[in-house]
Order: sequence, then structure tokens, then C-alpha cells
Amino acid sequence: MNLTLTLRILGALLICLAGALLLPLPFSFFYQDGAWPAFLSSALICLLVGSLLFYFCKSRKDMSVREGFAIVTFGWGFFALFGALPYLLSGAITSPVDAIFETMSGFTTTGSTILTHIEEMPQSLLFWRALTHWLGGMGIIVLSLAILPMLGVGGMQLFKAEVPGPTADRLKPRIQDTATLLWGVYLLLTVVETFLLMLGGMNFFDAICHAFATLATGGFSTRDASVAAFNSAYIDGVITLFMFLAGVNFTLHFQALRGKNLKFFYRNEEFRCYLGITLFATLCLLLFNWNGGIYQQFGENLRYSLFQVTSILTTTGFGTADYELWPVITQYILVLLMFIGGCAGSTGGGIKVARILLLFKHSQVQLFRLIHPRAVRLVKLGNRPVDREVLQAILGFFALFVGVFVTASLLMAACGMDLVSGGAAVVACLANIGPGLGSVGPTDNYAHVPVLGKGILVFCMLMGRLELFTVLVLFFPSFWRK
Amino acid sequence: MNLTLTLRILGALLICLAGALLLPLPFSFFYQDGAWPAFLSSALICLLVGSLLFYFCKSRKDMSVREGFAIVTFGWGFFALFGALPYLLSGAITSPVDAIFETMSGFTTTGSTILTHIEEMPQSLLFWRALTHWLGGMGIIVLSLAILPMLGVGGMQLFKAEVPGPTADRLKPRIQDTATLLWGVYLLLTVVETFLLMLGGMNFFDAICHAFATLATGGFSTRDASVAAFNSAYIDGVITLFMFLAGVNFTLHFQALRGKNLKFFYRNEEFRCYLGITLFATLCLLLFNWNGGIYQQFGENLRYSLFQVTSILTTTGFGTADYELWPVITQYILVLLMFIGGCAGSTGGGIKVARILLLFKHSQVQLFRLIHPRAVRLVKLGNRPVDREVLQAILGFFALFVGVFVTASLLMAACGMDLVSGGAAVVACLANIGPGLGSVGPTDNYAHVPVLGKGILVFCMLMGRLELFTVLVLFFPSFWRK
Repeated sequence: MNLTLTLRILGALLICLAGALLLPLPFSFFYQDGAWPAFLSSALICLLVGSLLFYFCKSRKDMSVREGFAIVTFGWGFFALFGALPYLLSGAITSPVDAIFETMSGFTTTGSTILTHIEEMPQSLLFWRALTHWLGGMGIIVLSLAILPMLGVGGMQLFKAEVPGPTADRLKPRIQDTATLLWGVYLLLTVVETFLLMLGGMNFFDAICHAFATLATGGFSTRDASVAAFNSAYIDGVITLFMFLAGVNFTLHFQALRGKNLKFFYRNEEFRCYLGITLFATLCLLLFNWNGGIYQQFGENLRYSLFQVTSILTTTGFGTADYELWPVITQYILVLLMFIGGCAGSTGGGIKVARILLLFKHSQVQLFRLIHPRAVRLVKLGNRPVDREVLQAILGFFALFVGVFVTASLLMAACGMDLVSGGAAVVACLANIGPGLGSVGPTDNYAHVPVLGKGILVFCMLMGRLELFTVLVLFFPSFWRK
Repeated sequence: MNLTLTLRILGALLICLAGALLLPLPFSFFYQDGAWPAFLSSALICLLVGSLLFYFCKSRKDMSVREGFAIVTFGWGFFALFGALPYLLSGAITSPVDAIFETMSGFTTTGSTILTHIEEMPQSLLFWRALTHWLGGMGIIVLSLAILPMLGVGGMQLFKAEVPGPTADRLKPRIQDTATLLWGVYLLLTVVETFLLMLGGMNFFDAICHAFATLATGGFSTRDASVAAFNSAYIDGVITLFMFLAGVNFTLHFQALRGKNLKFFYRNEEFRCYLGITLFATLCLLLFNWNGGIYQQFGENLRYSLFQVTSILTTTGFGTADYELWPVITQYILVLLMFIGGCAGSTGGGIKVARILLLFKHSQVQLFRLIHPRAVRLVKLGNRPVDREVLQAILGFFALFVGVFVTASLLMAACGMDLVSGGAAVVACLANIGPGLGSVGPTDNYAHVPVLGKGILVFCMLMGRLELFTVLVLFFPSFWRK
């Protein structure tokens, strides 16, 4: 591991963060919320630390895979630490653990909050909160479509962005190229959603904050009651649509926009599966909510059921209904969706639709082989056979996901959380969703979680966002050896 | 699939069952419980149906892998159906679903019961209940050490019994040989436990019933309060020891007895892991139960904590304490143990220690490969590299186990069970444990589960006992084609 090079790049990232910290300033001045000194001093601290790291840590060596892991993990860690400064310096959040929890929840696009009175917060801080989502989402798109596939993490090689770019196989230009193209799509979708939300009567501040949180599948709202506060079927509809889009592989959006053709979506097996899960889960919820007497009108039932399914499946975590009052079976379905998550290459979290699909196909092939021991049948995705190494990585990811979930839930129980709340809090953070069940349900927040529990959840958010492997390799002693 | 041959062998199995149905007769006469006509008529029905199948279904073809799957699955199914006759004919259980539930729970060595007043049952029926466990356990030993490895199910090839036998590689003599040797060990342990329990003051009837249920890791007791009814530290100790032994690969017992040396245990990596899990889980329970003020005396704490850990880990399901009154974290640990289960080649259920161990090692190798992409590191068990095919089968098993657990829990919720009880009932049946949590906890029973739910649970017991694959291959249309 080349620590000098890692620190130099982390320094450069901090300088970028300093720039981002200036963006909430216009909101602070416009709303006169008095938080501008907090942002200015936070930006200065980031600039100072970043510049020091960048200028004093010089290395002539090229970047290798190991530095890649370290930069990604520590990069997200640094952002969560330094991004928490405005909360602390403005006095809006007094506990450092809470501030780091909120920022990590932002940058990992989780959306779990420790805030109890969101409407009383300075607007510029709420904008910063939404911005951490949006920047995190930007990071995730490049990470999942360019960086992680190159590092060979958890079978993500399968989902390498098929975006035209320079043929040079060096790391940097390829990433820059992918980033520019996909961020264009991301920005476009954000602008369109903001516009559509303003058409529905939201002011610019609410509209842009919600658009940021939607496209990043984050889930921070500017209201305590989340999207329910706006009580508009039109707004629910717009957000449902964009949550669904944010859960799709961004390469598909790019291809569809460039080719002006929707066939790219339909041709993609993961997308078809993702659409199928959304429709099937919604159908189940419609049925059980109608049968349970929750919603008698079909339109109302569809509005709330579809919103909640999309919000949980894409791991956004916005709420328009308290699903804890729904029949038990619907809650169970929502918990399942939590584990599944969005498509690979989207901003959504969870295990990812493609991995679930391949696991299912692998089990099927295993069963088939028992009956036809001499037949050769490969696991395929979209008619292309999946490499054995990739499949093994995905199976390893699944085992690790279950293992981390179990271990973290156990630790939460040791902190004194009850079985359902503790487990739901872990999956909500590990899959980067936001709200869970029990005491961390859609109408609750994470303020009451013990400090140690918050620390575990922060780590879960980070691990979940970086596909587990990226964080866990750092625990191998041989990683640190020359 | 050769249906004629399958039916012929099933007929032969039914004739054996007819013999087994005569064994409770002495108890019926001794206790004068009036249930002897039920056993006699059940035996006659089995004899009749078995003989008809055996004589009218003749086939000259040899047995292939496919008939193997069908015989194992339908064999267990037939035993559950025909073994339920004494309950129904004696009128002790009036609902056919309940009777089949109880018998399937017996033959799969699960130990979930629908009986609410066990002490009021005729003794001969209670003996039959325990005997279904013991016969099921016999079946499991041969199945897991000889039949399933040959069928190549879920990585069980790894655990083929290393017992000396004829070198001919034909199926029948090998199985017969393995069976004779291992059943000797099984019988020996049963006799020793019965004797030790009688030394502790149990009468012969209670002693043999509990020995049957222990060695089969079943869990049916002759008392409503399970083992707690005897309220003896000595009896708890004896049962704890034998539950632990029943959870060990029976090949190890055979080797240790033949070689008069305990090193065979220690040399086996799966055994070391199994012992480690037992000790670690007990240590955690001791700590949390002491800290939670449940048990203040160390001796008492050890007695109850160790018993519950062994009972759940080996998937026996005997109870001496209501662990639902213990701290939440201890319940969580017990739920984890439910999934793990005993060693491969034991009578215990669950995922099996070896599979968990290999999953863990696989994940570790995956992480290692990320840092050292060119290094070759294989997954090993006991210093021997594990074949890639075997590993893939184990990973497939794990994915299937999770998939079946999730689907069945969902169906239980649809039947109206609450989240915790429904999920716990599924894992308790799928892992062949017996008691779960919530409304199916250690002091409750399964009588209140809706009929449809009971059906799902019966199917879970069967799938869990036959390592999933064996049952699920039957659902492939190509399985039934010529």
C-alpha cells in the first residue's frame, strides 16, 4: 500500500469538498438563516487540510488496485467526517457522533436521520443535507460502473459501463470519460425532476432538495413528515417515477437518450427483472391493503402502495404512508425488497437485482445438474454466459452480506435494541435505505439509538455502499504490507 | 424416471413400517392404554398396501440417480402419511393434517408438536412418537453419509462416510455396509443413554423415549414441560451430553470407537468448529443471562445456558427453560444457532457446520484474491482442497436455503401469522429444530397454526431434512421425462 499517494488523492478530494461546501451559501443568504459562517469555516478547514495533504504527500509511483480500495473507503470516510463540520459549527447538531451519522447517511445515500425537528433546521443546512445525497449519488455511479468493476469487486465486472470512450486501458481517462457522460444524464434527470416538482407547487428550495434526494435514492426530506407533507398525488407520482428511474443502471439511460429508443431498457434482463419485481410487489400490496381494509379506493391504494414499493426497492426511503399500520404480510414484502435493492450501476443500494437474479439462476443450474450430471449448462445473463469467477464473487458477496447483517444485528441487540428494530436498522443502513421497522420505522428516526449502535450503523452504511469487499479488504494484514 | 421401480421400493419400505408399527404394542399392553387395535390395524394397512406395491410393480431396470431422489422424497412422505394412522385410528388426534404434521415432525426429527396435553396421551402412542424420531434418525444417518453424497446433493460429496467396506462401487452393498456399521454406533449410544437416564430416576418408558428423541436430535418429550418436568441437574447433564454427541458426524464416533482414540474428533475440522460454536455461544449466554439477572448462581446458569445452546444448535429442541424470558440478545444468538445446525453426517438439521465453515472460507478467499489477483489460494477443509464443484453446490444450497426460508415465511405471513412467529416457525421446521419464538416458542405448540400454515411447515420439514435439493429436483419437468 502506497500511503503517500493515497493521502495525496484524499487531499485533492477534500479540496473538492471545500468547493461543495460553498454551494449552500446562497440559500443561507436568501433565507437569512445565519448558518453561513459555519459553511465558510468548514470550507476553509477542508481547503487547508486538503492542500496540506496534497502538497506534502508526493509520490512518483503509479496507482495500483490497493490504493484504489484505500482511496474509495477513506474517501467516503473523510467526506463523512469533514462534511459533518457545518452541522457541528452551526450548533444545529451538538453530538459529533450524530453529525457524522447524518453526513455518512447523506454521502452513502442512505437517508437515515437522527434529526427530530427537521423544519426548525436552517434551510442552508437542509440544502447541504440533500447535497450530500446528490454528491454521494454521483460518486456511486462512477464507483459502480467504472471503479469497482476494475477492482474486480463482488462480480461487478459484469456491469462495466458500456459507454464509448478512449480505448486506452489506463484507469484515469476511462473513469473521467465514463463520469462525464453519466453525470450528464444524472444532471439532466435532476433538472427535469426539479422542474416537474415546481410545476406541482413546490418552491425551488423544496423541489431541488427532493430532486437531489430522489436521484441519489437517498431519502432526506425537508419535512418531518417526508413527502407526505406535500399531500399531492401529482408530487407523489413524479417522485415515484424518478425513484424508479434512479434505480435503473445509468448506462441504460445514457444509451436510451443517445439512441432515442426505449428498446435498450427492454433488452436488458436486469431491467426486466427489476420492473417485474416492482409490479409484482405492488400487486401484492394492492391486494393485501385492499383486503386489510387500509385503502378502499383503487386510486388511493395504487398511489400509496406503488410509492412505498418503489421507495423501498430503490432504497430511497421517502415515505407517504406509515406502512407499520399495514397488514403484517405487506411489511414482510417491504423487508424483502430492502434486501434486493436497485439495479447494479444505479444509485440504489441493497444486494442488487442482478445478483439476486444470478443467485436464483445458479441454484437452478445446480438442481438441473443433479438430474443431468453430464449436461453442460451455464449461468447466463442476457444470453451471455457469466464467467465462473464472476459468479463465485457474487456468491461470496451474498454470503458476506448475510454474515455482516447477522453480526451487526447481533451487536445491535447487545446494545439493547429489540430484535425487530435492531435487525431492521441494520438492513436499512446496510442496504442504504433509511427507515426500517419498529422503533426506526417510517415515522420514527434514529436519534434514540445508543451511541455504540450509531457507530455500528455508520459502518454498515459505508460497507453497504461500497459493496462490502472494498471496505473489508482493508482488514487483511497483507493489504498493508509492501 | 422409472415409476414402477420407485413404487416397488416404496412398497418394501411400507412393509418395514408395518413391522415398526408393532413395536409399541408391548407398551400398550403393559400400560393398558387401549391403543393396540389402532397399531394393529395400521400395521395391517401398511402391510397390505406395501405388499400390493411390491408384487405388482416389477421392473428389470437398474436404479439410477433419478429413482434415488424419488424414493428418498416419497419414502419420507409415505412414512409421514402411513405413520399418522395410529394417531387417527385411536382417535388421539382427530384432524388428519394435525396427525400428518406430528408424524412428519417425528420422521424428520423436527420435534414440533401440535399436542396440547401430552401427558393425557396413551403411552404406546407417545412411544410411537419417539420411535418415529429414532427411525427418522436412522434414515438420516444413512441418507447423509451414503445416499446423498452419491446423488451429489448440495456438496454432501465431501462427507461421504469413510467407513471400510467392499470396494465394489455399486450402490446397494455400499449403503448396506455403511448402514450396518453406523447403526451399531447409533444403537449403542441409545442404549447407554437409556441406562444413564434410568440411573437418574426415570422409568424405562420415559428413559427410552427421551433417548430416542435425543439421539435423533428430535425433541419430542413424554411431558408437556419437556425435560424441565424432571427437574434434575443430572438428567439435564446426561441429555446435554448426548444431544452434543448426536450432533457429531457419526463416522467420527465409529472411528473413535474402533480406534479407541479420541484424536479422530480433534483432527476433524468440522468437529472443532462445532465445539467452538457450542462453547462460544454458551459463554455469551452465560454472560448475558448473568448480566440480565436471570441466573445469579454460576452452576444454575451453566446448566440452563449449555442445555439450551446444545438443544438448539443440534436442532433437538428439548427445553428446560423458557428462553423467551431471557434477554433479547440471547434469543438472537439462539436464532442464529438454529440456522447453523449440527455437523454433516449427524442426525442434526440446519445448514450444517461444515457448510457455514466453507462459506466463511470462500468469502475470505474472495477477499484475498482482490488484494492478490494472481495468487492461487484454494478453499480447504482439514488441509484438503475442496473441489470447485462441491463449493458451488454448497453456495447453491445456501442461496436456496435463504430463498426457501424467505418464501415460506412470506406464505406464513399471508396465513395471518405475525412476523416473528411465522419466520421462527419456518426456520424451526426447515432446520428441523422444533420450538421457535413468539407464538411457537418453547412453552407453546403448533396447534394454533392455520391449516394452510401447517401444510407449508410439513413441506419445510421435509425439504430441510432432505437437504432441499432432493425434494426440489422433483419440480423440474425434465425430471419426469424418460
